[in-house]
Amino acid sequence: MQTKIVLRDDQIPKAWYNVIPDMPGSLAPVINPRTGAPAAPEDLTPIFPMSLIEQEVSEQRWIEIPEEVRKVYQLWRPSPLYRAHRLEAALKTPARIYYKYEGVSPAGSHKPNTAIPQSWYNKQAGIKRLATETGAGQWGCSLALANSFFGIETTVYMVRVSFTQKPYRKNLMEVWGADVIPSPSELTEVGRRILEESPDTPGSLGIAISEAVEDAATHDDTNYALGSVLNHVCLHQTVIGLEAKEQLRMAGEKPDVIFGACGGGSNFAGIAFPFVRDKANGQDIRLVAVEPASCPTLTKGVYAYDYGDIAKLTPITKMYTLGHDFVPPGIHAGGLRYHGDSALVSQLRHEGIVDAVAYPQNACFEAALLFTRSEGIVPAPESSHAIKGAVDEAVRAREEGRERTILFCLSGHGNFDMTAYEDYLAGRLVDYAYPEELIRSSLANLPEVG
Amino acid sequence: MQTKIVLRDDQIPKAWYNVIPDMPGSLAPVINPRTGAPAAPEDLTPIFPMSLIEQEVSEQRWIEIPEEVRKVYQLWRPSPLYRAHRLEAALKTPARIYYKYEGVSPAGSHKPNTAIPQSWYNKQAGIKRLATETGAGQWGCSLALANSFFGIETTVYMVRVSFTQKPYRKNLMEVWGADVIPSPSELTEVGRRILEESPDTPGSLGIAISEAVEDAATHDDTNYALGSVLNHVCLHQTVIGLEAKEQLRMAGEKPDVIFGACGGGSNFAGIAFPFVRDKANGQDIRLVAVEPASCPTLTKGVYAYDYGDIAKLTPITKMYTLGHDFVPPGIHAGGLRYHGDSALVSQLRHEGIVDAVAYPQNACFEAALLFTRSEGIVPAPESSHAIKGAVDEAVRAREEGRERTILFCLSGHGNFDMTAYEDYLAGRLVDYAYPEELIRSSLANLPEVG
Repeated sequence: MQTKIVLRDDQIPKAWYNVIPDMPGSLAPVINPRTGAPAAPEDLTPIFPMSLIEQEVSEQRWIEIPEEVRKVYQLWRPSPLYRAHRLEAALKTPARIYYKYEGVSPAGSHKPNTAIPQSWYNKQAGIKRLATETGAGQWGCSLALANSFFGIETTVYMVRVSFTQKPYRKNLMEVWGADVIPSPSELTEVGRRILEESPDTPGSLGIAISEAVEDAATHDDTNYALGSVLNHVCLHQTVIGLEAKEQLRMAGEKPDVIFGACGGGSNFAGIAFPFVRDKANGQDIRLVAVEPASCPTLTKGVYAYDYGDIAKLTPITKMYTLGHDFVPPGIHAGGLRYHGDSALVSQLRHEGIVDAVAYPQNACFEAALLFTRSEGIVPAPESSHAIKGAVDEAVRAREEGRERTILFCLSGHGNFDMTAYEDYLAGRLVDYAYPEELIRSSLANLPEVG
Repeated sequence: MQTKIVLRDDQIPKAWYNVIPDMPGSLAPVINPRTGAPAAPEDLTPIFPMSLIEQEVSEQRWIEIPEEVRKVYQLWRPSPLYRAHRLEAALKTPARIYYKYEGVSPAGSHKPNTAIPQSWYNKQAGIKRLATETGAGQWGCSLALANSFFGIETTVYMVRVSFTQKPYRKNLMEVWGADVIPSPSELTEVGRRILEESPDTPGSLGIAISEAVEDAATHDDTNYALGSVLNHVCLHQTVIGLEAKEQLRMAGEKPDVIFGACGGGSNFAGIAFPFVRDKANGQDIRLVAVEPASCPTLTKGVYAYDYGDIAKLTPITKMYTLGHDFVPPGIHAGGLRYHGDSALVSQLRHEGIVDAVAYPQNACFEAALLFTRSEGIVPAPESSHAIKGAVDEAVRAREEGRERTILFCLSGHGNFDMTAYEDYLAGRLVDYAYPEELIRSSLANLPEVG
């Protein structure tokens, strides 16, 4: 009765899996917001290196992982796959539950899987500095960590309210050498304009994105890095699912259903995409994206062209969206508060290959607490969504009296989220009503394309 | 050029290593504080199960690890051993630096190595609840985690000033189901007496120990658990060094020098004791305990009989001590703020088998920052002491132009210590002067024994 399935260092995947050639339809083109025409690679060169732009549209199924990236991956990869024996016993389920644990990275989540290659490719392109935005700080930490390995400077525009209220991840970014700027700032034109209009603004992720993009676009030695949504980010995260597949094979298992938390989509893509081909080849397997009920992009949004940010600076992409000016309620799973979703996850959802389900946050924390008191690890609030999906599936298995094999991704630990647990234990956690009116009004503002 | 050396689950040690039979002299007897005579096992049965009392004095070199304890160890053990290639490069040293990383446990430190067996042995003895004390919360968290696996209740008396000022580890204990009480409390006689005398007291570890011991001694179904100092705690921690020895063997290495941070002594014992026999058998190897300059027990204390706590409730033990009423300055490495030291570590130090060195906290944080910016992992302030020892040794190797193999224990991560790093980066961290006067006066209060 094995608890932990471990791979050797030389079993870290040698190539990322690119789902694009295995999608039923061709990839919907991305639109340049200034011209209204399909975006060309050159449109992106001011902020991304060509190697990553190529990955964004590559039709190659396997893309080699550079040896130096694999060396850094080795610090925490291959990550362990666990059989959740104690959780199964607590649920009295005939289901076998496995979880892939990505909280073993120094930043505590799956984000370094893409931060490391993004930093490396930019280094190869001669870039000296990367600018990015961060909300609570998960992504900013991961990029700061990655850049510290490759000698690249990091500028993080951190949403001002998080900068002042949640200093711990800010400190962590600084420990790794990053320059952390409360956003909006005086450093950018967009920041100055917003500060002039509303000096007391708490800031927003949309503003911070705009500042980081402007910073990158206006400095020759500086590029921009994004922690989710984009195709190359989803690509890099497939190391998760590729390893998990091999580990399940070693345990003599094939998964019947896979759960991943889904905000921008890269974590879900990481665990699920490597199984898309098996599904295309006839394997009976469900791939379920789990999202918060208060930001139900895949379950309540529309499949349409929309902007990636509130300031309309980013390319227009076909995706499930709640409207680019929808601001989700302040749930603790900050990493899942995004109005849209990865183009790849969205298209797979539209084609019926990917399922989606949404849960309110109290139900997710309840599942997280059951998990941590049986398995020991304290999950990040984002990861608790995948746990809730797996727990419900295991309960159904019990009710139906049928075995099945469940896999989920435990994308990060909750060490920096203790106030969320405190609120839950004290009964102070709010389940926001489905923001129907807000979504209806923001969906009225979608751009007209094609 | 391997970065990480990993063992299989079936290579988790099957027995702990007991250093007692390999000590040059026999173990100095422990004195009952009430009778002044050597303590009998029965003196301890009100608060410890007989199995642990037996381990306290066992002459057996190898003590079998129960299968159920090994199963829980599997959640994070065997822990990885890393070759610090990037740190070596940053130091331009010919030394080869290896570190054993214990922060991979769900509690984030080495403490669960003993919390798990302590909880398990108490469960076997029919105990329903364990009482303990905690300062910043590292030990309280580890015991709460362990007890959650075996269905034992946890009562943690947490020093009041930490309870109010550092809520995160308190929340973590509660996530694992513990009942966390600010100490002094109304629940014990000693707590009530102190509150009556000084209602606004911030509390102290000495008071919290007294409350936990009283709680255990006055409830039949309740025992007490201690996170360091005692022989059985050092014994359980030897899994660290036993694994490291096997991992170094796989890398074709024998260590020339080993560093471990030393407060109560169990972390240092864990990494170093398994090499005591090699040293006795003629291997040229230095075992160096690293302590804070503001609490320099092994480097400036005396080897004498003293109490383990300020309230004189614990047995009188022969050890290096600064006096039981010495209160160390408020350094961030809270886990190293103990006036005394493990009897075993002390006796080995007295016999010249163990070396010791002391560093001020700014030097340790400087080493920690160098480490985290080259190796990625953010160390706990306690662990930074071992890093500083290793870094200095590596610099000496460079200056002497001589290779050597250095091993140190990275006992935990610093995720809950971000304010300490913030203070260091802002230049606010104080290096306390060596508290000579305080130590002189507390050393005047040693008990007269034998």
